[in-house]
Amino acid sequence: MAHLSARAISAEAEIVAMVRFLEQVTARSEARPDISDFTFGNPHEMPLPALVAALRKSVEPQREDWFAYRPSEPEGRAVIADGLTRELGLGFDPLDVTLTQGAFGAIALAFHLVMDAGDEVVIPVPGWFCYAPMLRAADLVPVKATLDPVSFELDLAAIEAAITPRTRMVVVNSPHNPTGRIYSRASLEALAELLERASSRIGARIWLLSDEPYRRIRFDGIGFTSPATVYPWTLIDYSYGKVLLAPGQRLGYLALSPLLPAPERQALRAAFVPVQLALGWTFPDAVMQYAVPALEAISIDMAALAARRDRMLQALEGWGYRLTRPEGTFYLWGAAPGGDGARFAEALAVEGVLVMPGTLFERPGDFRLSLTANTEMIERALPAFGAVLGALA
Amino acid sequence: MAHLSARAISAEAEIVAMVRFLEQVTARSEARPDISDFTFGNPHEMPLPALVAALRKSVEPQREDWFAYRPSEPEGRAVIADGLTRELGLGFDPLDVTLTQGAFGAIALAFHLVMDAGDEVVIPVPGWFCYAPMLRAADLVPVKATLDPVSFELDLAAIEAAITPRTRMVVVNSPHNPTGRIYSRASLEALAELLERASSRIGARIWLLSDEPYRRIRFDGIGFTSPATVYPWTLIDYSYGKVLLAPGQRLGYLALSPLLPAPERQALRAAFVPVQLALGWTFPDAVMQYAVPALEAISIDMAALAARRDRMLQALEGWGYRLTRPEGTFYLWGAAPGGDGARFAEALAVEGVLVMPGTLFERPGDFRLSLTANTEMIERALPAFGAVLGALA
Repeated sequence: MAHLSARAISAEAEIVAMVRFLEQVTARSEARPDISDFTFGNPHEMPLPALVAALRKSVEPQREDWFAYRPSEPEGRAVIADGLTRELGLGFDPLDVTLTQGAFGAIALAFHLVMDAGDEVVIPVPGWFCYAPMLRAADLVPVKATLDPVSFELDLAAIEAAITPRTRMVVVNSPHNPTGRIYSRASLEALAELLERASSRIGARIWLLSDEPYRRIRFDGIGFTSPATVYPWTLIDYSYGKVLLAPGQRLGYLALSPLLPAPERQALRAAFVPVQLALGWTFPDAVMQYAVPALEAISIDMAALAARRDRMLQALEGWGYRLTRPEGTFYLWGAAPGGDGARFAEALAVEGVLVMPGTLFERPGDFRLSLTANTEMIERALPAFGAVLGALA
Repeated sequence: MAHLSARAISAEAEIVAMVRFLEQVTARSEARPDISDFTFGNPHEMPLPALVAALRKSVEPQREDWFAYRPSEPEGRAVIADGLTRELGLGFDPLDVTLTQGAFGAIALAFHLVMDAGDEVVIPVPGWFCYAPMLRAADLVPVKATLDPVSFELDLAAIEAAITPRTRMVVVNSPHNPTGRIYSRASLEALAELLERASSRIGARIWLLSDEPYRRIRFDGIGFTSPATVYPWTLIDYSYGKVLLAPGQRLGYLALSPLLPAPERQALRAAFVPVQLALGWTFPDAVMQYAVPALEAISIDMAALAARRDRMLQALEGWGYRLTRPEGTFYLWGAAPGGDGARFAEALAVEGVLVMPGTLFERPGDFRLSLTANTEMIERALPAFGAVLGALA
């Protein structure tokens, strides 16, 4: 390892368990074609026809400069700003939006735009396993705040306790991966008040990164409040990879809360192009940018996803599993029978069923299922869930 | 600017002149449809039919997971390793190669893989205007070494003088943007010896980043030596954006010199996935990855490009322009008549001809032309070059 950078080593250490798990899933899936794969949020059905149609159209050049360097295209920014304005009830300007290579790209941009080496960022536990490695690669310091261990609501006391004089950002992820919780407006307002007070106390502005890639994946007509509507110092990241179930085609954006004070809003808008260029020209491919107007109107089949969620909940809860009923996302989160998520995942793997152990979320007693598994996988897997319960519980 | 990070401000300062220039070019091109645009290396003819055919094929899903998360696809890596083995005469393994979003992505990866905040990187002047902002965004320090002011050969004394105890990398760009020079094996061997000595002297390994996006764009049958063949501690970055003239579709790679000592080679290979993930999932879109085998065999029309170069050289030199005859790249570099590159560019702009002033390359007396302008643009522009010469020289 002699010549790897300290930040590369540190990023690798944060994510190595997940990378090994990914390799194991790939090997097991290749070895056994009848596998039921509930691990990553990856597609297990053919891509949406409307997505393929949009791509087919986008690859046909309409001008000489069709594949020229493309910073954020004005048309895509305008369509997204309109959508955000309608969805969040706040007036977004196209200039508040910059297109990125998925939410990953938007998060990396946010981390570099407003923070310097050594700054601390509060992230949720359980939570997405890439915040910490991304922070390490950016020379930033992840500080973990656990959610309420039963309800998985924001725990304001835990967030308050995690804040130090070096804190510059708090990450909020709603709908929440892996638990599917959606935070209420009241809860976010209380967080906003806390962040306002804490910023005054430490004499530095604490930003809020609202990680919203599952914003449009909600069940039972439940509403959504973006932190951007209650805390002006909010950056929103979004990805089309979830709602289109096509994470291999990178498209997302970073958006500024329109409530941000004008001089700040102006400085950030002006920094989008130079900083994205300096981070490695992190704009989406031309083909994806041209497709934005079409893609804004497309979604996976939410009724089918809800039916899948209900089928799994009913079957598993019928056997005695303790699960968190997701309000959004395409995940199902629960307590592993026997209390050991890794042992549970191994027992299921023997039966040809792959799930994600809670160890990858620092909750070793739990597990996560991705409902992007197809219907055949689900029906084939259900008996295994029953059998393993009997063996472990 | 109050809450922008110091690194964002610093990156922005390095590139703001180029971003303003880009905005000006865009505005002038929109205002005047008969403009002759010799500025950026962007396409001014319809995309290559073979490129469009490859994209058309790639967007058609062949499996359920067609648009799933895609780290570097094995097929693309294998095709690239074979190509490198043939081109450079060194045995590359597919695992030495990782796919990136263009050369930008490969350069950002290289900077983070082997360097930490405060490390210094020697970059050429004149040279590509994005090294410095990319280094600043990565908390690294650009140290400039001028090339020979007449021949634009590597100036080993200047490189030696730029090396300090904090130096960790030297960037070599051949074929060289903006001058079109290709460095000889002898010249690179002398550099390798210098770097070996300097590494011993400072007690730290100095890496070489070989920025080779123009590697396949060479004239007059001139050969190419990659620094990777003479200095084991070399990382190669490459982009398909030049040879396909499609920089809006991001595809490139980072490759390790096969001469790298085995433990180091192994550590870097293992770091590709975790570090690319931590930098923001910086793999190319699935569609571009599937297209690699087809795209490896495609190129812009080199005979047409050479004819364009010769036409411009002959006409301009006929009037008395002093130009550097490019051995590679699609640029033409020369001394501005009257000695003021900015004034020359403005005088041409009045005539509807856009060129890049040498100020953007820290050579205010020079200018750059991109030969990606189409034939009509060239023929329309030639009289203006003649007229302006008379007025300024």
